[in-house]
Amino acid sequence: MNDTALGEFDLIRRYFTAGAHRHTRTSLGIGDDCAILRPQPGFDLAVTVDTLVEGVHFLAGTDAERLGHKALAVNLSDLAAMGAQPAWVTLALTLPHVDEAWLSAFSSGFLALAKRSDVELVGGDTTRGPLSITVQAMGYVEADKALRRSGAKAGDAVYVTGSVGLAGVGLKSLLGYYDGVASEAIKQLEQPEARVQAGRELLGFAHACIDVSDGLSADLGHILDASKVGAALDWEALPLHDEVRQYIARTGDWLPPLVAGDDYELCFTMPPQHEPQLAAALAAVGTGFTRIGMIESEPGLRLLRNGQLQQLPVSGYQHFRK
Amino acid sequence: MNDTALGEFDLIRRYFTAGAHRHTRTSLGIGDDCAILRPQPGFDLAVTVDTLVEGVHFLAGTDAERLGHKALAVNLSDLAAMGAQPAWVTLALTLPHVDEAWLSAFSSGFLALAKRSDVELVGGDTTRGPLSITVQAMGYVEADKALRRSGAKAGDAVYVTGSVGLAGVGLKSLLGYYDGVASEAIKQLEQPEARVQAGRELLGFAHACIDVSDGLSADLGHILDASKVGAALDWEALPLHDEVRQYIARTGDWLPPLVAGDDYELCFTMPPQHEPQLAAALAAVGTGFTRIGMIESEPGLRLLRNGQLQQLPVSGYQHFRK
Repeated sequence: MNDTALGEFDLIRRYFTAGAHRHTRTSLGIGDDCAILRPQPGFDLAVTVDTLVEGVHFLAGTDAERLGHKALAVNLSDLAAMGAQPAWVTLALTLPHVDEAWLSAFSSGFLALAKRSDVELVGGDTTRGPLSITVQAMGYVEADKALRRSGAKAGDAVYVTGSVGLAGVGLKSLLGYYDGVASEAIKQLEQPEARVQAGRELLGFAHACIDVSDGLSADLGHILDASKVGAALDWEALPLHDEVRQYIARTGDWLPPLVAGDDYELCFTMPPQHEPQLAAALAAVGTGFTRIGMIESEPGLRLLRNGQLQQLPVSGYQHFRK
Repeated sequence: MNDTALGEFDLIRRYFTAGAHRHTRTSLGIGDDCAILRPQPGFDLAVTVDTLVEGVHFLAGTDAERLGHKALAVNLSDLAAMGAQPAWVTLALTLPHVDEAWLSAFSSGFLALAKRSDVELVGGDTTRGPLSITVQAMGYVEADKALRRSGAKAGDAVYVTGSVGLAGVGLKSLLGYYDGVASEAIKQLEQPEARVQAGRELLGFAHACIDVSDGLSADLGHILDASKVGAALDWEALPLHDEVRQYIARTGDWLPPLVAGDDYELCFTMPPQHEPQLAAALAAVGTGFTRIGMIESEPGLRLLRNGQLQQLPVSGYQHFRK
């Protein structure tokens, strides 16, 4: 469900969770990357929903094929963050008018990723209105094994797959705020790959996991809140793509790796002794990961940078905050 | 999913079903009121998704509490049409701005119906943008028992629960096209009740079922298409509310019972010998039903009215047709 921005989450919690009805077969309700449903004993189903609105989540004029890919990928990423195996998806598409070239490209991007991920589109609703795309994804996860945000423990190390801040540099480039090389950054922004196989491999190793959709500090902050712990990150350890290093060198702005969203990497915590085993498992699925800090019992998020320990605000992109 | 308007359905089928990937555990994909998923042998899950857009599905300024109720009810109605027992729902809400009074009223209408229906809200996404509401509902149905559109057989009778055309008269009243009494009609339009218990009782009796969201002729037309049969309806048999009878008497317009949508009654076909048994079962859940015609092997939809048999166009409200 990825209601990770604080403003959104506050809204949902305030109006839709207080006093809401609980179903006896729900294992985990609102508040994590996915809900976990238990239709039958011994069997769990992970469910997530995300909306992309033109002008909010993507720029007007975004290539339709890439948009189709991304609309599915961001939901697969929520399943990945729970360690679930994607299976089914529904699509609610609101369009201002019927544009056959757009529909053909959008569906082609969406369906190509679905096929590659063994995901079937099983429900749809198309409506006339301002362009927006709502995708709900469902996947399997072994009973009681789903990776929650709430399991981080002091002494765990903090890890992230791939690199951080790349999509954020891509957005700055597309918006005209940055004129350096950003081709990989734009690709990361427009065609993210959900870390589904990596999420599956994390089952049994990771104590807590989230996908980095709103920025590392905000998303790790959700783990810290849910787990009632704190963390210290080491700036030097953050995995940065060359295009991000160049961006920082040229602009002096070092914040994207911490606050920029849309990377769809997995941030997780794990006892560091599992590192060798996990390294072998993730190498087999072609995903790199990096230790970037430690979970501590003291609340809050701290960053060690240039020999200084500083408090980091736990925040990211918030739709309803100004 | 209720992609029952032909324009919408064509779109979905054309771009999103041709060549789309199938998952091995899907029992029924796109094209009925719900998809049927089979996560485990012997266990089926019905899934549906519907979007309501301001100015398309509801008038600007519609009471938020009633809108919250209706956004859930229309999805429960799709589950009812499959004979499924609702269990879980997700909500993607796009709002132009945070209006606390609106959110409070909307959530109150939504959650009250959820509680009454033993449904839990398990996922949410709130986004800034033009007002639209996408709800996905999930429910249980006994393995291989789900009521499909495709099972109607020549010799079945055609039935409908409640009455038809009432919500359509409500809409005409709200739009200022009709100045007669329409209080029950407006209530039917704004606060429809999904026929969930009736749908459960239909399992084992009905051969085919659909909910009447786009108008009786359009929705029955979907059964006829999917079942490769035709039907003849008897105008005199159509169950009409007094406000609809008055509307017809005053305006001369007799079409709403056949073409107006939003009633959310169930239209189903069944061998007529089951009538007494079903009557007892539906009486126990407080739902009336009426025989309105017969399924015939000759394709098409015919209406006997004033001694004349006329062909009815199989069409209803279509978002993308002018």
